[in-house]
Amino acid sequence: MEEFFRRAREASGELLGLKSGEKSQILREMAQLIQSEWGTIVEANRKDMEYAEEANLSSALKDRLYLDRQRVEAMAQAVREIAALKEPVGRVLDGWEIENGLRIEKVSIPIGVIGIIYESRPNVTSDAAALCFKSSNVAILKGGKEAKHSNEAIASLLQWVLERHGLPREVIALLPDYSREGVERLIKMDRYIDLIIPRGGEALIKYVSQNATVPVVKHDKGLCHTYIDRDADFEKAVKIALNAKVQRPGVCNAMETLLVDYAIKDEILLPLYNAFKPYETLLKGCSLTREVVDVAPAEEEDFQTEYLDNILSIKVVDGVEGAIDHIRRYGSGHSEAIVTENYTTAEKFLNGVDAACVYLNASTRFTDGGIFGFGAEVGISTNKLHARGPMGINDLTTYKYRIYGNGQIRQ
Amino acid sequence: MEEFFRRAREASGELLGLKSGEKSQILREMAQLIQSEWGTIVEANRKDMEYAEEANLSSALKDRLYLDRQRVEAMAQAVREIAALKEPVGRVLDGWEIENGLRIEKVSIPIGVIGIIYESRPNVTSDAAALCFKSSNVAILKGGKEAKHSNEAIASLLQWVLERHGLPREVIALLPDYSREGVERLIKMDRYIDLIIPRGGEALIKYVSQNATVPVVKHDKGLCHTYIDRDADFEKAVKIALNAKVQRPGVCNAMETLLVDYAIKDEILLPLYNAFKPYETLLKGCSLTREVVDVAPAEEEDFQTEYLDNILSIKVVDGVEGAIDHIRRYGSGHSEAIVTENYTTAEKFLNGVDAACVYLNASTRFTDGGIFGFGAEVGISTNKLHARGPMGINDLTTYKYRIYGNGQIRQ
Repeated sequence: MEEFFRRAREASGELLGLKSGEKSQILREMAQLIQSEWGTIVEANRKDMEYAEEANLSSALKDRLYLDRQRVEAMAQAVREIAALKEPVGRVLDGWEIENGLRIEKVSIPIGVIGIIYESRPNVTSDAAALCFKSSNVAILKGGKEAKHSNEAIASLLQWVLERHGLPREVIALLPDYSREGVERLIKMDRYIDLIIPRGGEALIKYVSQNATVPVVKHDKGLCHTYIDRDADFEKAVKIALNAKVQRPGVCNAMETLLVDYAIKDEILLPLYNAFKPYETLLKGCSLTREVVDVAPAEEEDFQTEYLDNILSIKVVDGVEGAIDHIRRYGSGHSEAIVTENYTTAEKFLNGVDAACVYLNASTRFTDGGIFGFGAEVGISTNKLHARGPMGINDLTTYKYRIYGNGQIRQ
Repeated sequence: MEEFFRRAREASGELLGLKSGEKSQILREMAQLIQSEWGTIVEANRKDMEYAEEANLSSALKDRLYLDRQRVEAMAQAVREIAALKEPVGRVLDGWEIENGLRIEKVSIPIGVIGIIYESRPNVTSDAAALCFKSSNVAILKGGKEAKHSNEAIASLLQWVLERHGLPREVIALLPDYSREGVERLIKMDRYIDLIIPRGGEALIKYVSQNATVPVVKHDKGLCHTYIDRDADFEKAVKIALNAKVQRPGVCNAMETLLVDYAIKDEILLPLYNAFKPYETLLKGCSLTREVVDVAPAEEEDFQTEYLDNILSIKVVDGVEGAIDHIRRYGSGHSEAIVTENYTTAEKFLNGVDAACVYLNASTRFTDGGIFGFGAEVGISTNKLHARGPMGINDLTTYKYRIYGNGQIRQ
């Protein structure tokens, strides 16, 4: 097994010599092959679907697993878009000359070997492989065993293109071990692997974070808040709160708790209540909220819960300080918003709240690599270090210093 | 014990409101107090020195531990220099507007709570505290128990200034538990601590890396190489090799292994041998080296060893590819140099070697935050993520996105 990881490490050296154009060309060929071999992929997917039927997996899970020609074409298209991204390696991030004439350049380079742990969606196989390849990283992919046949079919096609270009297939490696022990080994291979990105449920992420010796960039939960301040434009406030909750409740950047300034509870809560009514959102409120509108009671536990559903907790707080306190206690550091027209209040919130994204007068739903303009999204990091918030392909690079001299020695 | 960490976390919120000028002023007052209270510090240090005598600690360790008026004044001066650094928080790292008019700003912010684990030098207490405070981070300091009294005296003075300015003393906290279990608890407090920086021997760093659930930025060993290519300017080559080894052999950026191109071994090895002679460097060589000059044999183990001493292994390699291969196998990713006048060879080396710092025609001894122009040095990171190579105070920050809207919602 160690041999598998050692070969992946070795393969990473071979990627350093590739020109940007070669990488794009290889990715376009991969996309082409995925598209033309859609039948092979769908056939393999049928085996996974049969297993899913037998194992009585949930219909949501089966939907994530399922592939047809259209979905395979979307996968190919995603690879083409990654091929077209701006080259992430070799960017000069900084550069200067020091007194003795040494020129220092800080240049982006690949991270090396990246392990990606994911669950049922087979399209992550081609997405993650393409993002890693575009950034000259070796990808070790550990998909869910329910998608085994689909993932193997996709990876084989990609590896076939690699070999046609004289590259080792280990550049895009599928972890052959689908057991829990497989994950355990993967996340402790710090000799060979530079970064682990787990994408999946809370249990997986917690397990990986607590046990990995390889550095981890997490994509953890989003318990996002919107705070409506006394100086808010009420019309914007209602529109933003509604959008943050109902536009797509099942995602990490959706609002889970609405915070309302005590000073305006009597004016704003009823319009909010009426706005949510047509969307049948299950509203829960603190006792002060329930004095104004007729909603279910929100308990302590509600404020700790990422519903990922059409449910909203409402809490009346004591101005912007009360909002900041609440978010410090319950927020997950993902996305937080304030609605206010008051400059000083806005600054207090934007500085005082520690989250990857802090919004003034906008919906938290904008936390997204695509919307930020990063192109294909690697994910949304809830780490504080290396990468925070929406991750683009540049976050799959690190840097080195190149120092140019002509005989300088240290005195 | 958990209470101690929880209070440190809470204190980090109080630092967000501080203006840059206030921070500098507080740091200058700390420096002033260290200087005027030098007697208190030296008195406390005497207790540590007595213990060191009794415990029969090595003279090198006792020298690192020892404080006198002059050394205390140097500590105060270091704090003054940190006070004068450019403000690391609030730098706008990037900013752009997206189609719907949202303005996105990427801004540097403090990391939060930083745990620093170090050994005998008491000056690290004031250095690390000042660097963390300047970057608005809470510092949890875990020094060696042999420096207990010195560290406590220094921290008390710093805390006294904090309290005079209405700040909680937990902003600069000394871990009260000097046992191994103290470290173990510290590195697993991911709920309260954002980053651990271990500074010390290999055993400590290995233990921390393998067991921490808090992210770690390591300052690990430097097994640095210099490769002399067939197209080198021989005069530069000898000067650079000599400097990289003998100017200060006991540090991490000193050269441990010299790689010599097979094509020039007969011309370059003797001048090298003669250059090292007056410095009494213990030279060890591979069998090809020993055909040309009379040096001790270098074994496999030598090439794996960070001597930190006036000892040098020499290996003849097959051109730049041979050098890259050797460095991939034995290098620690710290600092690597090539001496050549050939552009293509230089590019091959600078691209093909994965290290924090890669040098062309210069001594590896320049890997140093001060020399790079970063001001007070946090350390030299051997991590690939977050910070790599010489770390300045900016590496004690992370970032958030501030997003400014006027009612934008997602469609």
